[in-house]
Formats: sequence, structure tokens, C-alpha cells
Amino acid sequence: MIETPSLVDQYCHGVLRTELGLGTFEAHLSRTEGPPAPGTTLFDTQTGFAVRRWCPPLLGLEPHCTPARYLARRRELGVLESGRRLLRGSGITTYLVDTGLPGDLTGPGELASAGAAEAHEIVRLELLAEQVADTSGTVESFLANLAESVHAAAAHAVAFTSVAGVRHGLALAPEPPGPGEVRGAVGRWLAGRGVGGELSDPVLLRHLLWSAVASGLPLQLHAGLGAGLRIDRTDPVLLTDFVRATAGLGTDLVLLHGYPYHRHAAHLAGVFPHVYVDSGAALVRTGARAATVLAEILELAPFGKILFSSGAQGLPELHVVGARLFREALGRVLGTWVAEGAWSLADAQRVAGMLASGNARRVYGLD
Amino acid sequence: MIETPSLVDQYCHGVLRTELGLGTFEAHLSRTEGPPAPGTTLFDTQTGFAVRRWCPPLLGLEPHCTPARYLARRRELGVLESGRRLLRGSGITTYLVDTGLPGDLTGPGELASAGAAEAHEIVRLELLAEQVADTSGTVESFLANLAESVHAAAAHAVAFTSVAGVRHGLALAPEPPGPGEVRGAVGRWLAGRGVGGELSDPVLLRHLLWSAVASGLPLQLHAGLGAGLRIDRTDPVLLTDFVRATAGLGTDLVLLHGYPYHRHAAHLAGVFPHVYVDSGAALVRTGARAATVLAEILELAPFGKILFSSGAQGLPELHVVGARLFREALGRVLGTWVAEGAWSLADAQRVAGMLASGNARRVYGLD
Amino acid sequence: MIETPSLVDQYCHGVLRTELGLGTFEAHLSRTEGPPAPGTTLFDTQTGFAVRRWCPPLLGLEPHCTPARYLARRRELGVLESGRRLLRGSGITTYLVDTGLPGDLTGPGELASAGAAEAHEIVRLELLAEQVADTSGTVESFLANLAESVHAAAAHAVAFTSVAGVRHGLALAPEPPGPGEVRGAVGRWLAGRGVGGELSDPVLLRHLLWSAVASGLPLQLHAGLGAGLRIDRTDPVLLTDFVRATAGLGTDLVLLHGYPYHRHAAHLAGVFPHVYVDSGAALVRTGARAATVLAEILELAPFGKILFSSGAQGLPELHVVGARLFREALGRVLGTWVAEGAWSLADAQRVAGMLASGNARRVYGLD
Repeated sequence: MIETPSLVDQYCHGVLRTELGLGTFEAHLSRTEGPPAPGTTLFDTQTGFAVRRWCPPLLGLEPHCTPARYLARRRELGVLESGRRLLRGSGITTYLVDTGLPGDLTGPGELASAGAAEAHEIVRLELLAEQVADTSGTVESFLANLAESVHAAAAHAVAFTSVAGVRHGLALAPEPPGPGEVRGAVGRWLAGRGVGGELSDPVLLRHLLWSAVASGLPLQLHAGLGAGLRIDRTDPVLLTDFVRATAGLGTDLVLLHGYPYHRHAAHLAGVFPHVYVDSGAALVRTGARAATVLAEILELAPFGKILFSSGAQGLPELHVVGARLFREALGRVLGTWVAEGAWSLADAQRVAGMLASGNARRVYGLD
Repeated sequence: MIETPSLVDQYCHGVLRTELGLGTFEAHLSRTEGPPAPGTTLFDTQTGFAVRRWCPPLLGLEPHCTPARYLARRRELGVLESGRRLLRGSGITTYLVDTGLPGDLTGPGELASAGAAEAHEIVRLELLAEQVADTSGTVESFLANLAESVHAAAAHAVAFTSVAGVRHGLALAPEPPGPGEVRGAVGRWLAGRGVGGELSDPVLLRHLLWSAVASGLPLQLHAGLGAGLRIDRTDPVLLTDFVRATAGLGTDLVLLHGYPYHRHAAHLAGVFPHVYVDSGAALVRTGARAATVLAEILELAPFGKILFSSGAQGLPELHVVGARLFREALGRVLGTWVAEGAWSLADAQRVAGMLASGNARRVYGLD
Repeated sequence: MIETPSLVDQYCHGVLRTELGLGTFEAHLSRTEGPPAPGTTLFDTQTGFAVRRWCPPLLGLEPHCTPARYLARRRELGVLESGRRLLRGSGITTYLVDTGLPGDLTGPGELASAGAAEAHEIVRLELLAEQVADTSGTVESFLANLAESVHAAAAHAVAFTSVAGVRHGLALAPEPPGPGEVRGAVGRWLAGRGVGGELSDPVLLRHLLWSAVASGLPLQLHAGLGAGLRIDRTDPVLLTDFVRATAGLGTDLVLLHGYPYHRHAAHLAGVFPHVYVDSGAALVRTGARAATVLAEILELAPFGKILFSSGAQGLPELHVVGARLFREALGRVLGTWVAEGAWSLADAQRVAGMLASGNARRVYGLD
């Protein structure tokens, strides 16, 4: 039996503070462009089934009970207490929290307290730039304030994260944009935007990426699954030239999600010393298939380069599902290899510890 | 044990009316650009092995008997009687039949009668347009006749299907072409074609797609495996912008085949309420690997969005193989998840019924 | 139990003649752009674990012993003796050896003698052209000498191989370049290069490919995994038009590696009579996942079109691992299908023999 007593969730978000009904809960199970089709429900997905498997027992119910029954019990306990029970039942001992999402989500401190765990902040580059833009009147003040904000964030956060892939696609020019180019792009963007306006200009996205690279903090890049674009535009292979351009600079790159291009992400982690690959968020989406998806990542990625995350957002159920699916998948995949004689048990236990927490502790410098 | 007592085959063709020898039978097992390589046979493929597994017992022979023995028995019974035994042994109770292929194939009525099943027609857009072009002298008459034909087809057919992906690739401009653009393209096409000339102009292909969308009937789009093009030009991800452009119009899109891009097709079915994904034709091609391919579709596609088809063409053996592989794969995949505790048995049985027939009945409005 | 008593390794390289330490051995386990990341080792990869599983027993140690212990024993025996024990324990009876790599590697004769096996040469087109360029003063003499060298190579080698995919990417114009175009490209290349300068001009790469096609010898094309480029530029699907252009000319094309695009390579082998697909090198990289990767190739590729290779380079351990992983994967995949009733045992044994050696013997004319 392969044990993973402690999990570092290297990428997640906070949880909602409001009570949820059947429909509002269902809407958080998946990222769709529209409501469920007539005659269908998002509970009938791998994520929905995984929630129904793992979460009811943490609230004192039978696994696989109906969504209505589960949500009634959740409301009966209240959002705070059910959140506490779920997070504490997840097995996650450290949360790295991307605080850059809109909505009434708990921050790292509140998540740590509810989950009886540690938590650290991940700073989302695009939100940081948008916040700076909201309070900067000129191109020069924006650039100065941005540099200062990145510097300040690097002092308290454990990583930067970028959604350039979702905003524009990953086919970005690999080199840093020149100063004149950046000033021109900032000018056009500031002139055209209202308060809160989104940053999607490729020159500015690249400027943010290179600002983060210069900070030395690990940089997480969203790739693969995500909403709003054609999925092939987020294939991590499109990052190859950027990866090559940032080699040897001392900053680690962590490819998040990846699925359905996770074999490509694993390839990059195998070829480039400073590239790491996530193995978590895809599991929450693929549920009963988690062991296979994890095994596909374990094909090319060196075992010292794979990190766990839940990618959870809004529902503590997703933290639970991410952690349980990962643990069970890891135990099953490595356990099978031990049973077949392909791996020794000692190696399997060592690798399990690396994926569950050791690699993340080393990459993010946690204690 | 997961049961699927009734199957709706949401996409297939009729069967040949002529007796077949070893060579002519073999040629229908796979779509190749040329005869088998010297020293090889198309019986030595997953499809060939699946036919030898499932079909001999339906004609009173041992499974895995030699191709020569099987075909001798088939000729002994005659093409009609062997077709009846095979189709009735498939477990398919409703056939949706694309009548748009050339060759001496049985129509829906004959297929229904031979198989003791129901059958409905699917109208292939490109053939419809080619037939209209054969009898229309001018651009205006072509367009008027086409509109009328689409309208008439919508009244008796259960779906439209398009092979735009095979003819041109799926990287089509997403919006409907303007009337002047369409008239120009029709003029050039009519001027250049002889009777029966194929439609492959991208403007006309888009005009057909949008005519079908306007009809409200489900629209099936061929993607993935197919002959005549580079396979990456049929990646369903290339349809993303067209999918987005047709959202909310009330017409469902069904992505056929998909393999080897079936995870991409499943992703689209997960994100867009009006997108559905096929899980059949790929199984006929991948045989003993059917359970894995089906499971890959079940990763991202909501369970209410997955439909079965055989994709069979010419040989009733392919209807049998499609149905048997699907049933066995579904039973094995869901059964394993139940055994592992990931799914409840009740959920698995409900989902099996949805994939086998329930989803198709709802999408195509069958009784 | 599926038996494969004899293996033809259709693509490999020689082994190093020098003693190796821990670091120099580790560097040959994977192709990376830089040293292992701090805190990680390339022994913690599928390849590293597979070496530790299969090789220690051949040198009288326990499987899974530490790298340090294994390398101490390897040095104790000496590079020659350990190489003999490893190669003779691999089960490979015929090596086809690409002699076009730099470095102090054994040639086919020495490999045959060490391994008590047969060996034949594969000629690498790009190296051949570079060697001709080193000794040709003019465009005309280069072209004449190249033609003569290709002709001479065709008389003694069993195949040509091309790394056009690694040098330029596989998106090459499919038709042969015209004579004027070739002369122009040769002139520019000769003028710009020093001795040993690499050939990466797409016109010259195409000229080499078509020279090889004209020779009638099987032509091996590197696709998928490799160093130095974006991996999507080596997707074998990019070869589709070249494949179509060479159909019917009597020359077989063999797609090497393929992973992670091996399903695409298998598709091409299924559609085009003259295309074959490799199933070996990917297994060395994916280790405990070899059975799944092999099974993915077995989905679309006809069984008469799949060949084994180790792709090994430098370390005899990689020949061992390639052969053992292939044998075990093949036995497990086909054995499972027999156990499930999907295949007959007789068919499985016949197909195993085809993949292990029969197909290679036919394609390369090894009596």
C-alpha cells in the first residue's frame, strides 16, 4: 500500500462563503458556455460522480447519495461547518492559493484556518496589472507601479501565475518585448480600457511573463483545459521557444492543467531542467479515469518534476475530490507497477512522497 | 452486470446487396488508399479480428474461424439470409441511416426489415446539393431548389449530416457566408462541374451547414478518421468557432467519429450545451481497444451528451461489430468503476441506458 | 503465454567503448537540454527505473539495486564484458544499426560480435550528404558524388534513415525539388558551411528523401520524440502529402518513434500500403507504461505493418530495456486479449511473431 500522508496543493482557489442551492452548486462543477442542455445535468459528469463518491461520507451520508440529499445536508450544517469538514477531510496540509479570481472567495488565511492547514499566496499577473492600471494615470506611472507591485508580490507570495494562454493563447513571441513596444502597448491599453478592463494584449502578457521570470519566483503557466478559446491554442508545446528562452535564468516554470495535452507538458518537463508539470486539475475533471491520466503524465515526466494540485475553485468539494482522486490514482498506478515487478516498493513510496509534497516543497521553498 | 437491452445506432449506412468474395469482403474492412501491402491482409487488423470474433457464431460457426471458412458459410446462406441473421443478432433496435453514399446499398426501409428494427433517414447535405445542381440550370434556381430540398428533407429526416471535414477540412470560417458570396461560389461551381461533380467549395459547404442549422434538425459533423485529407485537418477543435457561432440557435451539433481527436470532441460536448459526441465508429476501428477508447470519451463528455453509432457501411458485419464492441466496452468500463467503488451500480445502469439509446431518443426526437 | 523467441531490432545505434561513471551514465538515459534540475536525477525516470529492473540480473545483481551499486559492478566487469552480457541477454538476434551518429560507438560488426547476433547497416542520409560535402568542391561534383554515394549505400545497407524532422520539421513540400532549385540550395549551403557543417536546408533534405525513394531501399523517417525542435513539428501527420506522393513507387516508408503522435503514425500505416510504423523507441522512454503505448499503436496499424526497435544509443542497457519492455508489453497486451476472448491464441502468437521479427524480415529483405 503506497502512502501519501501529506499533500501540498500547489494550485487552488478559495471557497465560496454563500449557501448554495442545487442549481448554483451544479454550475460550479464544470466550466461551460451556457446552462446544461435540456434533459441533462452537470451532476452526470465525472466531476459530479466524484463529488458524490467522496464528499457525502465527510458530511455523514452514504457515498453516491442523490445531489438533492447531499445539498440538503450541506445546508443543514451550514456553509462554514460543511467547508471545515470537507477541507479537513481532504488530506491537504498546505494550500497554495491563486487569489486572482473575482467573486466572494476565501483568501489563504481563511482557507488555512478552515482546513487546519498552511496556506500561501500565488499572485496572478494579469490581475496585478489590471489593479495597477486602475490606479495609474500614465504609461510611465503604470510601468513603475507595476514593477514595484511585482517586486512587492515576490516578497510575500510563493509563485506567480499567468493566464496568458486563456487570454491570448500560448503562441506568444518567446523573447521579452522591447521597452518602446511595451510603452506603446500600455498606452493603447490604458487609453481604451475602463476600470477593471481585462488585459489580453500579447505584448503586455509577455511583459508580465518576463517581469515574473526576472523575480526568480516560480512561474505557473495555465495550459490545456480552460474556457474561452480554442483548446489547441493552449497546447503547452506552443511554449517551447519561451521555455528555451528562459532556460538557465534560475526561474522555474510550472505547467498547470495540461490535459488533453498533458503528454506534451510531460515531454517539456523531461527535456528542460527548469520545467515542472502539474498532475492534479486534470484528475478532478476526469474522475474515474484519474489513474490513467496520471499514468500518462508519468510516462515522460521525470518523477522529480511532477507536482500535485486540485485546481479547486469555489467548492471545497473540489479540493476533496482533487486530493482523493490523486491519492487513490497514485496508489493504484504505483501499486500496480510494484505488483508487476516493474518498480520496487521502496522506489514507489519514495516517488509517491515526491509527487504528493516533496517536489512542491523544494520548488516553492516551503519550510 | 450492466445491461443495454436496446441500441439506437445514430449513424450508419445500408448494406451491400451483392455476394462478396474474400478480396471484395476484405476491401470493406478498412478505408485505405490502395490494396493491402504485399504479405499483409486487412483481416489482420482490429476490425478484421473483431469480425472474426463476433460474426461467425451468428452464422453457426466457431468464433475466430478463418476468413475463408466464414465467407464460404456466408455465401452458402446467401447475402440476404446472412444479412438478416447478422443484423438481428446485433442488438440494434433503431438505425439512423445516412443515405448519401454511392453504391448499391440498402435504404432505411430495407435495413429495418432485414434487421427487424426501426430505421430513419439522415440526409447528407453535400449529396443533396449535388443532386439539386444536377437538375438546376441557374444560380437562382439552384439556390431556390436547394432551400426547398433542405426544407423537404427536414420534414422527413431525423438529422442532416455533413462531410465538410472530409471534403475541405474543418477550418472553415465560422459565420454564414453572405448572399453575394454564396451566389458567386454557386456560379463558379455550376459552371465548372459535370453531372455528379463533387461539392468541396468552402463557401458552399458553409452555406449548407448554415441551411441545416436554420432547419432546427440535429446536424452531424464528420470529424477525425476519414479518407482523403490530412487527419489533423479534421480535428474537431477546428470547429470551436462555428460551435460558438451556432450556440443558442436551438440546433444540436453531433460530432461523429472524432478518433484520434475524440478527447477534443468530448471537451466540446462538455463546454457547449448544444454539442454531442459520438462513441461508436471509433470502436469498430480499434476493436480489442474499444473499452479504452470509450473510456477516453467518458473523461470530459457529460454522460447526457454521448451517443452510440456503428458507422457501419456495406457489410452487416460492421453493424454487428459496432454494437457488440460498444456493449461489451460499456459494460466493462462502467462495471470496473462500480467494482472499484467509483460509481454506484444504479448510476452505471442509468448512464448505460443513456448512451445506448436514451440520449439518441431525446436528441433525435424518436417516439 | 505469448512467445517471441527472436527479435529484429529495426533501428538502433552502437554502444560506447569507454567506461562510464554515475554522471556520464545518467546523461545517456534521456535527451535533455541541460543537466538534471537541482534535487532531481535522470535515474528517477521510466527509463532509469526500467534499466534498474532489467539490467542488474544480467550482471549478477538484484533487480532495482541502486545506480551506484549497478555501476560499480559494471566497472568491475569492464565495459566490454558487461556489454557482452547485456546484449546477449537482450533476446535480440538481428540489429539494424544507424551508423550516422557522432561519438565513439561500435559499428554493426562489433555489435554483432558482442551480441552474438547478426547486424546490418542503416545509412543516415544527412551524414552521407555532409561527408560528400566535405570532399566536394563544386555544386556539380557534390551532386554527382552524392548520387554515387546513395547508389553505393543502397548496395550494402538495408535501409536509409532521415532526420529531416529533427533538422527542419516534417512540414516539407511533398514533391521532389526541381534540379535548378537543388543546385541553388547546394551552392548556398556549400558556400556557407565549414567542414562537418550540418545539413538543415529543406530543399536539400527533400532532395535526399527523394534520392532515397529512388533507390528502392526502405526509408526510415524520424517522427515524434526528438531533441531540438518543437515536438509538434515532428507530428507524422505532417508527412501525409509526402506519403501520398511516394505511393506506388515501390519504396516502403517506416515511421520511427512517433510518440506522442504514435496514433497518427499508426493511422498512416493503416491508410497507405507502403507505410510501416515503429513500436519500440517509445517503450524505452515510457517504461512501466510500455504495454499501453504499444496497445495504442495496435489500434489502427494493421498487424503486418508494425515493427520493433529499441532505438538504443550508447548504452547496451537501452538495447536490453527496449527488448525486454517490448516482449513483456506484447505478451501482456495480446495475452489479455486472448484471456478476454477478443483474440484467439493462435492469432496472438502469429501476430507476436510478425511484430517481433517477421514484418522486419519481409520489409528489409533479411532472408
